[in-house]
Amino acid sequence: MAKREGQLRLGAFYHEGGHHVAAWRHAGAASEGLQDLIDFARKAEAAKFDAVFFADGPGVRLRNLAVASAKAHSGVRAFEPVTLLAALALATDRIGLVATASSSFNEPYNLARQFASLDHISGGRAGWNLVTTNDQDAAFNFNHGAQLPHAQRYQRAAEFADVVLGLWDSWEDDAFPRDREAGRYFDPAKLHVLDHKGPHFQVLGPLNIPRTPQGHPVVVQAGSSEPGKELAARTAEVIFTAQQTLEEAIDFYADVKARLARYGRARDDLKILPGVSPVVGRTRAEARAKFEALQELITPEVGLGLLSDHLGADLSGYPLDGPIPDLPPTNGGKSRQTLVVDLALREKLTVRELYLRIAGARGHWQLVGTPADIADQLEERFVHYGADGFNVMPPLLPGSLDDFIELVVPELRRRGLFRSEYEGDTLRDHLGLRRPENRFARRIAAAE
Amino acid sequence: MAKREGQLRLGAFYHEGGHHVAAWRHAGAASEGLQDLIDFARKAEAAKFDAVFFADGPGVRLRNLAVASAKAHSGVRAFEPVTLLAALALATDRIGLVATASSSFNEPYNLARQFASLDHISGGRAGWNLVTTNDQDAAFNFNHGAQLPHAQRYQRAAEFADVVLGLWDSWEDDAFPRDREAGRYFDPAKLHVLDHKGPHFQVLGPLNIPRTPQGHPVVVQAGSSEPGKELAARTAEVIFTAQQTLEEAIDFYADVKARLARYGRARDDLKILPGVSPVVGRTRAEARAKFEALQELITPEVGLGLLSDHLGADLSGYPLDGPIPDLPPTNGGKSRQTLVVDLALREKLTVRELYLRIAGARGHWQLVGTPADIADQLEERFVHYGADGFNVMPPLLPGSLDDFIELVVPELRRRGLFRSEYEGDTLRDHLGLRRPENRFARRIAAAE
Repeated sequence: MAKREGQLRLGAFYHEGGHHVAAWRHAGAASEGLQDLIDFARKAEAAKFDAVFFADGPGVRLRNLAVASAKAHSGVRAFEPVTLLAALALATDRIGLVATASSSFNEPYNLARQFASLDHISGGRAGWNLVTTNDQDAAFNFNHGAQLPHAQRYQRAAEFADVVLGLWDSWEDDAFPRDREAGRYFDPAKLHVLDHKGPHFQVLGPLNIPRTPQGHPVVVQAGSSEPGKELAARTAEVIFTAQQTLEEAIDFYADVKARLARYGRARDDLKILPGVSPVVGRTRAEARAKFEALQELITPEVGLGLLSDHLGADLSGYPLDGPIPDLPPTNGGKSRQTLVVDLALREKLTVRELYLRIAGARGHWQLVGTPADIADQLEERFVHYGADGFNVMPPLLPGSLDDFIELVVPELRRRGLFRSEYEGDTLRDHLGLRRPENRFARRIAAAE
Repeated sequence: MAKREGQLRLGAFYHEGGHHVAAWRHAGAASEGLQDLIDFARKAEAAKFDAVFFADGPGVRLRNLAVASAKAHSGVRAFEPVTLLAALALATDRIGLVATASSSFNEPYNLARQFASLDHISGGRAGWNLVTTNDQDAAFNFNHGAQLPHAQRYQRAAEFADVVLGLWDSWEDDAFPRDREAGRYFDPAKLHVLDHKGPHFQVLGPLNIPRTPQGHPVVVQAGSSEPGKELAARTAEVIFTAQQTLEEAIDFYADVKARLARYGRARDDLKILPGVSPVVGRTRAEARAKFEALQELITPEVGLGLLSDHLGADLSGYPLDGPIPDLPPTNGGKSRQTLVVDLALREKLTVRELYLRIAGARGHWQLVGTPADIADQLEERFVHYGADGFNVMPPLLPGSLDDFIELVVPELRRRGLFRSEYEGDTLRDHLGLRRPENRFARRIAAAE
C-alpha cells in the first residue's frame, strides 16, 4: 500500500452498553455505573488511545420516546459530560478527555470556564466538542418554542467559539507572579479584557481562571454540512465526521483541508477522525456471528425510531419492506440526513434494511471482520488521506472495545500505524497539535 | 450551659491561601494547585466534617481591580466549582461537596443536570449553594448592560429553584427496570414531564439523568435579606449566613425557623450554619500573635478594596482614620452591607479599623483564642439556638484548618458536640436531613 508518513490517532467513543441501538439488551452489555466509565477510560488509556469521547444533548429525545415508547435507550439518560470528565481526570493520567457541549444552549462564559477548569484538573487533557444541537426536544428545555434554524445555529456557534477562544486568552501564561514580598499577586500587563460585542453575545471578560496547560482545550467539531465545514476550518482542531465510502472520505478530507489556508492555518492544524464501528472476530464467521447477535435484538419500533431520528422525519407509517419515501426538508442535522439517504439510494435499501444498516454504527462506518480485515480498511483510509485517524465506536461495551484493543491494536502496531507509548502528556501532544500562543501576547510582540 | 440535644454540623469553606484578605502573602499559605484542594478535602473528611464548601462568582471583580490594582487576590481566579467538585468526589469517600452556582447566570436545565451528575458521581454527597450573584462585573459577562435589581434577581431565583427541583423529580427512583428480555429499558409510568411555564423560564423536561442517590442534591442558600430569608424558608435545606453577635444570631435563627411552617416544612428541614473564622492558639497570646501576623500583611489599598466591595460603594476618597461616610443605597448584597455598617456603628469604627475588622472573616464572625475559648463560643451559639452548626472559614490555609482540627475538634468531641465517625454515607445523612420523596410519585399515591 502507498506509504504515508506518521501514525493514526484513535479516539474511544463511549455509549452506554455500546453504540449499537440494541446493545443494552445483549447479555454482555455493561450498565452505566461510574465504575463502568472508569474502566472504559482506563482500558483506552492502557491501549494508548489519544482520547475518550462523549456525545451530549441537553434533553431526552421525546420524539424517540413517541415512536419507540420505552424500548429505545439512546438519548434518554447519561452522566452530564463535563462533571463526568472531571471525575475521569482523577481516575486516569494520560488519555485525552473530550466532552460535547452545545453552543445553542450554553453561555460562552460558563462553558469557557468549565473546559478551562477541566484542562487544569486533568493537566492538559481536555477537549471541547462544539455542537449546535439539532434536537427539537432540547430547545423546549431552554425557553424556546422551537429550535433555531440551521443557519442561525451556525452563526451563533461561530460567534460563540470566538468568545470562548478569546476568553481563554484572558491571562498570559505567566500572569500570576504571586510575589508575596511586593504584594503582587498578578501582573496587570498580562491581563486582557476581551470586551466582545456581537449580534448574539456581549461578553466583557476576563475569564476568572488562568490560561490552561494546553494554552486552551482542544476544539473539536462534528458538523459536516457546508457551514459546519467552514466553521471547522476556521476554529476546529479535530473534526469528528462520518463517511461511508473511501471516495466520500477522500473528498471530505480534501475539501476541509483546502479550506484551512484562507484562515491562515496549516493542514496539520486540523485532524480529521471519522467514526468507525468495528466488530472483530478471529475469523470472518465469528465476526459476522457477533454482529448478527446484536442485529437480532432490534425490534421494528426501535429500528424505526432510530431511522426517524437520523432522517428528521417520522417513518412509522411506511411499510417496513418498501422503499424510503421522499422526505420533507429538515431543520435538523443536514449532514446526517444526507449521509443516510445517500446510503439508501446507493444500495436501494428498504426501510427495514436501512435501519438495520445504521443500527450498528448510527450512520457511521460499520466494519465486520478479522483483525487484518479491519486494519486493512483503516490503513487504506489513512494512507489515501481519507482520515488522520478514527473515533472508535464500539457496538457493544465492554466486549467490542476489548476485541479492538486485543486484536486490532496489535495489528496496527505491527504495521507501524499506532503508538506503543504516549509521546507526551497532553491531548495536544497525543494528537500532534501545537500549543497555541496567546493571541493578545502575540499582538503586543508584533507591535514592538 | 443549658442543654440542647444533638450535635453541631461543620462545613469547611475553602479559599485560596485562606479567607483572610492578605493570607496569600503569608509564608505558610498554600497556592491553589489541585493537590492543595485534594489535601483540603481529605483533611476535612478525616476530621469528619459534614462538607467542604466553595463560593463562586462568574467573573473577575474588576471593581476590586480598579481599587486595589494587582494586589487583591480574592475573586480573581479559581477552579470552576462544579468541575472541581466532580474531581474531588473521586479523591474522597464520605464528605459532602457543596458548590455555589448562580441563578442569574445559568440555565436551570444545565444546572440541574450538573448537580444531579455530581450527586451520582459522588454517591450522594452533592449540595448546590444557590446565589443570585450581586457582582456588577459578572453581569457584563452575560449580555447584560447592568445587573438585575435585587428584587428581580430573587424573583428569578425562586422560579429557577422551582424548575431545578421539579426537573430533579423527572424520574422516579425505580424508573429504569432495564429488562433485557422484554426490551423494557425504562418504565413510562415513572417518567414525569415538568412542562414549566413561568415569567422567567419555559422548561419542558424531563431531565436526562436518573433521580439521584439523595433524591436530589442538598439545596443551600446564603442570602440573609428579606427575600433571601423567604426563599430559604421555601426551598433551602441549609442556610449559610453571617451574624456578628449572639443576639443577632438568635434573632435570625428564630426568624427563619418560624417561616418554615407556612411552607409545610418542619424546623429540622433547614439547618442554619453561620460562617466563623477561627484563629486558634495554645494560649491566647499565641492566637493573637497568629492573627496580628496576618493583619500586618494588609495594605491600605487592599483593605479599602475589600471594604468597598462589602459596602457596594467606593471608599477610596475618604480619610482612613475618619468615620464611615453615609452610603448610597446599594443594588448589591443588602444583607452584607447592613451587617458591616451595623458593626461599624455599634463599635464606632474608623474606615481603617473597619477594614481590619472584616479582613479576617470577610464580614463573618471572627474568633481568636484558645481551643476552650473557641469551643465556648461555638457551644454558646449552638445551645442558645443561634446556629445548628458552622461553616468554618480558615483565615490561613492550610495552617488555620490544621489548628482547628488538631485543637478545637477534640475539644468539641469531649463536650459531646461533634461526631467521631460518620453516621451515614450521604451529605443528607451527615446533616440529618431526610431524603425527599419524588413529588410526582407522592401526588399519584395521594390520588389513589
